[in-house]
Amino acid sequence: MIEETPKIPQATSKRLPLYYRFLQNFANLGKKRVSSSELSEAMKIDAATIRRDFSHFGALGRKGYGYDVHYLVEFFRQILDQDEGTDVALIGVGSLGSAFLKYNFHKNHNTRIVVAFDPKAPAEGKMLSGIPVFHPDTISEKIVELGIDLVILTVPSRVAQDVTDKLIKAGIKGILNFTPVRLTAPDEVRVHTIDLSVELQTLIYFMKNDVKNSQL
Amino acid sequence: MIEETPKIPQATSKRLPLYYRFLQNFANLGKKRVSSSELSEAMKIDAATIRRDFSHFGALGRKGYGYDVHYLVEFFRQILDQDEGTDVALIGVGSLGSAFLKYNFHKNHNTRIVVAFDPKAPAEGKMLSGIPVFHPDTISEKIVELGIDLVILTVPSRVAQDVTDKLIKAGIKGILNFTPVRLTAPDEVRVHTIDLSVELQTLIYFMKNDVKNSQL
Repeated sequence: MIEETPKIPQATSKRLPLYYRFLQNFANLGKKRVSSSELSEAMKIDAATIRRDFSHFGALGRKGYGYDVHYLVEFFRQILDQDEGTDVALIGVGSLGSAFLKYNFHKNHNTRIVVAFDPKAPAEGKMLSGIPVFHPDTISEKIVELGIDLVILTVPSRVAQDVTDKLIKAGIKGILNFTPVRLTAPDEVRVHTIDLSVELQTLIYFMKNDVKNSQL
Repeated sequence: MIEETPKIPQATSKRLPLYYRFLQNFANLGKKRVSSSELSEAMKIDAATIRRDFSHFGALGRKGYGYDVHYLVEFFRQILDQDEGTDVALIGVGSLGSAFLKYNFHKNHNTRIVVAFDPKAPAEGKMLSGIPVFHPDTISEKIVELGIDLVILTVPSRVAQDVTDKLIKAGIKGILNFTPVRLTAPDEVRVHTIDLSVELQTLIYFMKNDVKNSQL
């Protein structure tokens, strides 16, 4: 259906997984058509933004008709490469890591944690929430063996950079970083940092200064 | 020192807590001056972006000298209202909520969880990681009593909107939402959503499509 992915703005890219999920919801409800205002209402995103985002993918909707839900779901599935599952390794099984193991992205069947590493695990590994947890000594070997290129990092700050260096040597291409450390990584490795203190402080700042509202 | 907070772009606003934390680090290391390139190196943010951000606050630096660390820390502290502590309520003590209770933003002394709510807690409350956890029946009463206007929401999706409605009635002004639900809230209530599946899918999309790199 799609020959190649068009070049689209970063802000639009960040909303794609959200569009995909909401369109799936509409499809699951048996809805065949959806208007930008219905999507706007459900997603709390401005309808004009939705129309502008969708325009980057060509003429996906028609005036007075709206968007074809099935077509859009297929379209976004392909854009997001949802057909291809992604195996993820969890690095560090402390309290936050354990929460992620339990949660394991149930809603998102194509992305899942398949292995975890923690210094408290024995060399031969142990099972936790149905996922094997190994000692970090085997990290490089297992990551290569399992062909993993994405990790969730929930280790203590003091070891975050060392662990990152090791992961990069093992061929990791993406890190979802939950430590407050700003990691050093080569350009070809994508690091996305979610620092809970910073998120909270930003929210407080926005509350106090009445920065224009939007679901960030 | 500052009469009123200048109007600054949203993208700049989102970096303020990060600037504040890194400048504190420099101050703690006994550093008196810092250049935009040193900050850039530490924070993995483009030096030009830092200079542009700082320019919104007036002439804070001088060519060939750099920025005065103590002055900047004081400046950002006031901008961020760090002198004023913020008490936070945690709503929902499942595995993710428990992790937040343990973590409790240790690095950020002015923001802390002071109370939590969970249906498994007895009416009279119980202590968990040193924080009182109460039954949600008392939520409105306690929030008013403690003067809390910010919550971290880690409840199951199916109750997220109901709980939100209750919190808004109790006077909450900000919600850090960790559920995948896009919450409906009036304009004066700020909702910041961190959806782990979406964050992961976005990272995967960026990895596959080589969207211009930056620590997001």
